[in-house]
Amino acid sequence: MPKYVIGVDFGTESGRAVLVKVANGEELATAVYPYSHGVIDERLPILGKEIRLEQDWALQDPQDYIRVFQQTIPQVLALSGVDAADVIGVGIDFTACTMLPVKADGTPLCVLPHFRENPHAWVKLWKHHSAQPEADHINEAARQMGEPWLKRYGGKISSEWFFSKVLQILNDAPEIYQAADRLIEAADWVVWQLTGVETRNACTAGYKAIWSKREGFPSPEYFEKLHPSMKHVIQEKMSPDIRPMGEKAGGLSEQAAQWTHLKKGTAVAIANVDAHVAVPAATVTEPGRMVMIMGTSTCDMVLGDKERFVPGMCGYVEDGIIPGFFGYEAGQSCVGDHFAWFVEHCVSGAYELEAKARGVDIHKLLEEKVARLTPGESGLLALDWWNGNRSVLVDVDLTGLIIGATLATKPEEIYRALIEATAYGKRVIIETFIDNEVPIHELIACGGLPEKNKVLMQIYADVIGLPIRVNASKQTSALGSAMFGAVAAGKAAGGYESIYEAAKYMAHLKDETYIPDPENQKIYNQLYAEYLILHDYFGRGENDVMKRLKHIKAEQMKV
Amino acid sequence: MPKYVIGVDFGTESGRAVLVKVANGEELATAVYPYSHGVIDERLPILGKEIRLEQDWALQDPQDYIRVFQQTIPQVLALSGVDAADVIGVGIDFTACTMLPVKADGTPLCVLPHFRENPHAWVKLWKHHSAQPEADHINEAARQMGEPWLKRYGGKISSEWFFSKVLQILNDAPEIYQAADRLIEAADWVVWQLTGVETRNACTAGYKAIWSKREGFPSPEYFEKLHPSMKHVIQEKMSPDIRPMGEKAGGLSEQAAQWTHLKKGTAVAIANVDAHVAVPAATVTEPGRMVMIMGTSTCDMVLGDKERFVPGMCGYVEDGIIPGFFGYEAGQSCVGDHFAWFVEHCVSGAYELEAKARGVDIHKLLEEKVARLTPGESGLLALDWWNGNRSVLVDVDLTGLIIGATLATKPEEIYRALIEATAYGKRVIIETFIDNEVPIHELIACGGLPEKNKVLMQIYADVIGLPIRVNASKQTSALGSAMFGAVAAGKAAGGYESIYEAAKYMAHLKDETYIPDPENQKIYNQLYAEYLILHDYFGRGENDVMKRLKHIKAEQMKV
Repeated sequence: MPKYVIGVDFGTESGRAVLVKVANGEELATAVYPYSHGVIDERLPILGKEIRLEQDWALQDPQDYIRVFQQTIPQVLALSGVDAADVIGVGIDFTACTMLPVKADGTPLCVLPHFRENPHAWVKLWKHHSAQPEADHINEAARQMGEPWLKRYGGKISSEWFFSKVLQILNDAPEIYQAADRLIEAADWVVWQLTGVETRNACTAGYKAIWSKREGFPSPEYFEKLHPSMKHVIQEKMSPDIRPMGEKAGGLSEQAAQWTHLKKGTAVAIANVDAHVAVPAATVTEPGRMVMIMGTSTCDMVLGDKERFVPGMCGYVEDGIIPGFFGYEAGQSCVGDHFAWFVEHCVSGAYELEAKARGVDIHKLLEEKVARLTPGESGLLALDWWNGNRSVLVDVDLTGLIIGATLATKPEEIYRALIEATAYGKRVIIETFIDNEVPIHELIACGGLPEKNKVLMQIYADVIGLPIRVNASKQTSALGSAMFGAVAAGKAAGGYESIYEAAKYMAHLKDETYIPDPENQKIYNQLYAEYLILHDYFGRGENDVMKRLKHIKAEQMKV
Repeated sequence: MPKYVIGVDFGTESGRAVLVKVANGEELATAVYPYSHGVIDERLPILGKEIRLEQDWALQDPQDYIRVFQQTIPQVLALSGVDAADVIGVGIDFTACTMLPVKADGTPLCVLPHFRENPHAWVKLWKHHSAQPEADHINEAARQMGEPWLKRYGGKISSEWFFSKVLQILNDAPEIYQAADRLIEAADWVVWQLTGVETRNACTAGYKAIWSKREGFPSPEYFEKLHPSMKHVIQEKMSPDIRPMGEKAGGLSEQAAQWTHLKKGTAVAIANVDAHVAVPAATVTEPGRMVMIMGTSTCDMVLGDKERFVPGMCGYVEDGIIPGFFGYEAGQSCVGDHFAWFVEHCVSGAYELEAKARGVDIHKLLEEKVARLTPGESGLLALDWWNGNRSVLVDVDLTGLIIGATLATKPEEIYRALIEATAYGKRVIIETFIDNEVPIHELIACGGLPEKNKVLMQIYADVIGLPIRVNASKQTSALGSAMFGAVAAGKAAGGYESIYEAAKYMAHLKDETYIPDPENQKIYNQLYAEYLILHDYFGRGENDVMKRLKHIKAEQMKV
């Protein structure tokens, strides 16, 4: 009998399960559960109580995660007609850092009546952005103490990351910090719920919680400097036992078997992160081929066999993506969002009518108009910093710029300039990796954008000058999780020995390749040279006008 | 019996007559005649013949100007019920440089069957832009010969001006050049048609034809360098006898009296230019108060009692606006056009629906939204170079820039940033005048924009830091022409002794004054400092990216 695995991908708004054939990665069934409480960013979902959240908060309800298992796994079994006995493994991936405080038995504090009305008891979602003062404090303390790990993260820890959120709990709700026996990534928490065993994965620990295989966590002295009560946070609230990707966390518990209709004891893989788990699902288990997950923002990942400090990247973690390699991560904070902003605010009613009359959506209409333009024809150039710059300048206070506008400038020209700007930004990332001895010779695209916008893909190839292939699965993360499920199950049970082997059989690319057009490349090389001049002038301190404008704006908002 | 005068304003699309009471400037009647052939920019209006024009051509039919007299003057007489015997004077103003080749008796070459099918025989309208190679040649020759007059025009002669157009005729149609007994501004030609006497006015001669009261025209040697046949162009085709503003050209001829239903012999003033004639109509006959004519582009005029070379201005002419003063002119090439571009291309369908639902036009809706914003609140800053920079950089190859965009940026914020950018551009002009000892302490606004957009006016006052008053007449140019008609008639006939006296009684401002808000000024001073840094960085050669992008674009357009 053929064997199957299930990957469960926990996104921002919903969770999705995909049932996959082990032999070839074929996706037999998919089910999605939209979280009943979604993203909690205005008030706690407590009936009869009005507990409002401050700006930049974003919480979730951990019960929603359990419901994902209860709803989606039975559904994919039913849809596919596969026998639970033939499902040999389960893997999960999660947004990160998405974390919560729990009791020693795994009970989230927010389900306890005593803590339910305290927002700090709930899950802090990755995009909970109100811990910036804590992040600033963490960075400043690290600089003062000369902490060596700061370099691994391009010199800066984000407000989204684990200890920024932990320190915010401690500062604002010390009673929650005290009551929490464990502070844990939601990724690890759901694996705990499936298996009854608490484990910690190297991916979130490495990318989000300042851990490395060789150096472990920062020292108690460092944590003490952040807050006296935090000195032993690792020993008291977390675990120094971090498990590499590809390991088995445990077998499905009796209770989880009831939730999911799977067999008790089914292998469950160590938790993973939605972006990173996509790498092997995009066929990449070796250095040289960069995976770009392209959505509202983009995440770029590449493997290296040597440890390299690459300035301005998000971070790198040994064994954090694929065991045996350093997994390097970079990102652009505004890609799909950029185009969505443009379409929402800057496209005239006339274009909307044209799209409607032709029965195409506005993105498609713009794509067609963009396709009729040639590189350089618009005379426009943009800096893609509408949401700051994540890599390589690592500066949220940078802003967007467009130059070259005339009275003849058309919306599709601006749109193309924004696409090109994100491609130039990508090229800066790639060249920075290459210059720092992390080689890249091919790009693999995943996510929503490559499916939707072929013109964009060709522009990327032309601007960057590397061939781009597109991942075959539209559910890359869930497929990756399923693959790790097959590895956790192991060869003997009908799975795979390693993620390398799983990738070889289960991951696929589309046949098409976007090849750089040499004529277009010539023009884009000229335009990229101009981009770099502006990039450095505005991004590296020669003219800090963007920051000064933000400062003036902030002063005005206070009035 | 009260006395009356008529001002006739020849615009780009139509001519308009206004009948005005001499005693107080009251406008009793207005009539407009849209030129039957409008702007001729695709093909000559000859039945049964397809004679196409090249790109950047813009011609007119001189017969349309005669029709303006025939149609509008009888109409304003009829509308007002005023007796022709009580109309003591007529003045006209025209777009410039709008010029044509004519025979010695004033017959335009284009009405002669022999030349009718040659586009160069027709009127070249001010915005006929295809003589750029000739303008380049004129400037280059002047630099080589060290011509002193180049400095008077900020170092550059425009393709729109008189000798660029003359040289184009000579280069492309030498037979037309040879056949022309006179080359003349349309302004002077229509006065000739009214009076039967050829005169030349100091305003067009000074601003458009390189003439000055003290130095006359360039030398025959200079003209010879442009083209051997041009050596004696002044003596052969024009006139060295240039008449100051405010003089009488002559009396209405028998024929013109028939056209207009006015009395033969009615005083006709020396011709004027639409922008410059607005200065006394805006109450300005002395230094220190700058008149801003604000429409699609803007024209700024200020009087000075000393001769000053002000770098980057359009030019200055002694007696060119008001006798006894140097008339300084500057301009911005993209103001109303800027906002029209934005509204046409960059305002979403949602805003259009909102405007429709509320029964207001989209400009009005945006104005309301702009009014709710405070200075600096958007974090945006723009360079107002969508159509190049006319003053003080004098560079058509500069382009528009906007900086500070984020995912939260709204259309009205961009709109406000564009308004502010034009205000910063205006402040650069004003400060350049002041720095070069042409003092300015108050601004007078005329034209369409001040009527339509009060928020814009307040932004200008706040950015510039000077009070702004608005002209009372909505037909400033026609009123100015009427005032010069009253001066041509003279005191004895019931008119005025001088334009100073005419302005005292006939020109009026509205009561309202836009006073700078000190709080807003503080913020705008900060933003203006940022504007200046970008202005100089992109505009003065530190980073010529705008030109390089234009070059790449031009290369692409060739492919």
